[in-house]
Amino acid sequence: MVQLESQATPRRARKIGARQIYDALKDQILSRVYEAGGQLPSSRNLSNELGVSRTTVTVAYEQLAAEGFVELRQGTRPRVAALPFGQRSKDTAPTQQEPRLSAYGERLRAIPPWLDYLPGSLMVDFRYGDLAPSDFPARAWKKAVNSVIAQRPSRLAYDDPRGSRRLRQALQGYLWRARTLRCDLEQIIIVNGSQQGLDLCARLLLDPGSEFVIENPGYRMARQIFASTGASPVSIAVDGEGLKTESLEGVRARLAYVTPSHQFPLGGVMPISRRHQLLEWARENDAYVIEDDYDSEYRYDISPVPPLHSLETGTNVIYLGTISKTLSPMMRIGYLIVPPELQDVFATAKQLFDRHSPVTEQEALASLIESGAYERHVRRVRRLNRDRRETLLNALQRAFGERMTVEGADAGLHVVVWFNELPKLSEAALVETARRAGIGVHSISPLCEQQPDETMADRTGLVMGYSALTPRQIEKGVQLLLAAAKTVKGQS
Amino acid sequence: MVQLESQATPRRARKIGARQIYDALKDQILSRVYEAGGQLPSSRNLSNELGVSRTTVTVAYEQLAAEGFVELRQGTRPRVAALPFGQRSKDTAPTQQEPRLSAYGERLRAIPPWLDYLPGSLMVDFRYGDLAPSDFPARAWKKAVNSVIAQRPSRLAYDDPRGSRRLRQALQGYLWRARTLRCDLEQIIIVNGSQQGLDLCARLLLDPGSEFVIENPGYRMARQIFASTGASPVSIAVDGEGLKTESLEGVRARLAYVTPSHQFPLGGVMPISRRHQLLEWARENDAYVIEDDYDSEYRYDISPVPPLHSLETGTNVIYLGTISKTLSPMMRIGYLIVPPELQDVFATAKQLFDRHSPVTEQEALASLIESGAYERHVRRVRRLNRDRRETLLNALQRAFGERMTVEGADAGLHVVVWFNELPKLSEAALVETARRAGIGVHSISPLCEQQPDETMADRTGLVMGYSALTPRQIEKGVQLLLAAAKTVKGQS
Repeated sequence: MVQLESQATPRRARKIGARQIYDALKDQILSRVYEAGGQLPSSRNLSNELGVSRTTVTVAYEQLAAEGFVELRQGTRPRVAALPFGQRSKDTAPTQQEPRLSAYGERLRAIPPWLDYLPGSLMVDFRYGDLAPSDFPARAWKKAVNSVIAQRPSRLAYDDPRGSRRLRQALQGYLWRARTLRCDLEQIIIVNGSQQGLDLCARLLLDPGSEFVIENPGYRMARQIFASTGASPVSIAVDGEGLKTESLEGVRARLAYVTPSHQFPLGGVMPISRRHQLLEWARENDAYVIEDDYDSEYRYDISPVPPLHSLETGTNVIYLGTISKTLSPMMRIGYLIVPPELQDVFATAKQLFDRHSPVTEQEALASLIESGAYERHVRRVRRLNRDRRETLLNALQRAFGERMTVEGADAGLHVVVWFNELPKLSEAALVETARRAGIGVHSISPLCEQQPDETMADRTGLVMGYSALTPRQIEKGVQLLLAAAKTVKGQS
Repeated sequence: MVQLESQATPRRARKIGARQIYDALKDQILSRVYEAGGQLPSSRNLSNELGVSRTTVTVAYEQLAAEGFVELRQGTRPRVAALPFGQRSKDTAPTQQEPRLSAYGERLRAIPPWLDYLPGSLMVDFRYGDLAPSDFPARAWKKAVNSVIAQRPSRLAYDDPRGSRRLRQALQGYLWRARTLRCDLEQIIIVNGSQQGLDLCARLLLDPGSEFVIENPGYRMARQIFASTGASPVSIAVDGEGLKTESLEGVRARLAYVTPSHQFPLGGVMPISRRHQLLEWARENDAYVIEDDYDSEYRYDISPVPPLHSLETGTNVIYLGTISKTLSPMMRIGYLIVPPELQDVFATAKQLFDRHSPVTEQEALASLIESGAYERHVRRVRRLNRDRRETLLNALQRAFGERMTVEGADAGLHVVVWFNELPKLSEAALVETARRAGIGVHSISPLCEQQPDETMADRTGLVMGYSALTPRQIEKGVQLLLAAAKTVKGQS
């Protein structure tokens, strides 16, 4: 009577369990082998038929009864419940192909997937943002994590949405020491990497139809998250000194996103005059400035520049920091410093978005900062990346000489390389040719608005990150890039 | 000439560094001690004056020059840059009190803070959602985390926004074994706890002005995150069998949020007839059903109920799971199983929101699931919580007997207790009186719409969580709750 499908493996088939009986009966009820209200086999009959104990059958029936499929009454055979089962069988169920999304969802659906996370099978990849696992302070981190796991809290419970108090305290001191940035604990919101910080700003500050200022070229995922709200970008060109703040005149945007310590990707440091112009504009327009200080730890030939946030007129500044460039992008820890009038609504938003960031890694980071291990680590990786940068610049110089111009090498973990003899049209061919040779290089074009400013020139440009590579890999990579460039030039 | 402020500690004051010189000069430039374009002291004079090396002074000047405050030219004294400094001094700078927020931000500002994370100083707290640290498998977890830290990836780089492939594979098997839920890897999105899963659904599926179905009483933070989009709640009453699906007739909402395995907070299990009615409604209205399976691991007197997702008509179901009730709410790991037509846009959204969830804890969880340790742990905590529940039910029975009705005790980590002799008006007094005696109890009212359904009756109701407490604490807590109830009754 009850057909047990032979999905079961041979080993399992020898011993029929309550789950299989349950599944089989349910399938048969749903496919109307037994009609609504109809009688089912008694548990005694079924146990004989299947060669299992009566208890096993009873468990299956009780489960079906708990779910409302069958009705059990003492002394009578089980019955199929009289229920409004779905009229359609599995075959005729329409498969919904077009999702019904919000306007927000439709905007996101229009964004082409950004597959920067796909693992490469490349010999050398100059992808920006990756770090070398050998730089990671595995021993210190492991110790810190284990000490946190060992310290049992009094309860396992939701934490403060602004983040671990211990980490906020440690960061407060660190930001003052390293960045001359002063703030209250309540202004600090720990986020899941700077991307979540940008999302908080986007949702809390932008409406559909409002405007935001963005650097061109600039950080693509910032532009996308702001635009996802339905707000419109006002792209402002950058030069060797960051955002051209004189272009802000007449712009009535609600926020401006900038990278003043080291413009991404071109590498300019914004001078004080532009900083004041930017803050003045923000004040006049009642706009917020988001200062993304994503790689301020890496400065080589120049000293660290204090953030906009530290300027006396920086009252409208939202400061954004991250450990993705010093420890690991996989950890997802960043922090916002928000003006006092925003601290409550940012805390509410963080709580509604995801309660708070995971606690163990926050506390482990706090312990690294408290012990001084974090700042020692930063000094160490700064030296390592300085060496990588030297290797890259020397290799590029040897390979390309005057045929290439490098921008933004004073700081950070990447440089922009312009190939003076290759027109913009060759960019895709260079990337593709290099990739076939096992070298990952990345075009600057996706970071530019469609109508690039004249300073961008008609040249092929690459953003070359070096922080995940060994000096040997860097040299090998540049060698093969040279070969690729020659091939492309020969073809053009 | 250069006044060094005495903010420095005595120890530091003995040795003036470049940072202090830099700070002092910058302050003076900003406060117009030196006018724009005016000369500054030569580095030789300043080094003599301050008793520091000339290099120290030069470092300070170079930093000021890098930031654009001063201009350095070989052979002449440094000059203050001729710049458009802000006209206002710090004292006259207006302090912006009212933030300029988006409509979204304004809606969030209207939400009263939900301080459920504040650490209690209570002797016994029956707060729902907390777990006992002694239940946490610290040894196994530590081992899993350390093994993940030891496995260095080839690069530290952003991961797949849908989450660690290893964890999704482990969950795919787990969900099939534990919940008869079948899905593809691509349908699984790892989120930072179920709250982020709800946020993804809210933003991708709801527009301002659209409607969503929510249980009454129900989970407050689900209601809030959906309402934050500007959509309107359609509250539908629940009874002992979950959502009263017959009330869905005529409702044209875009999504319905339900807890069919164990309604929160009342505890009903939705029978199959209602499940079909709900799914039928969803299909007719092209709406999605969010099935929050938050505590399905804890079932005591009844067997686990397969999720809506497993029903053949469950094509519109978004399934939401979490480890907050089995391992820890502080870890922030949850997962969504979305229908195929939603998988791409959910992945894009997760990437834009925060790139991906932190990797180490995902991989550690995967290793616990792979080894079977997770399921052993679940069985262990189920036993522990079954014992706690027994203790609570017995203690309540002894203390209150017929004067109390308990709901929803078959499953989960909480019960709802109705005090038959205390009117609704006494609820706040009971909570307050208990709190003064060191007992945290939590009113059901915040989980109810303002016009409670008649089934809610005019009684005091509490949601009592027990999973963070020892049997001894539970007994003590109920004893003191009895005393509090007597006091309140005497007053009324």
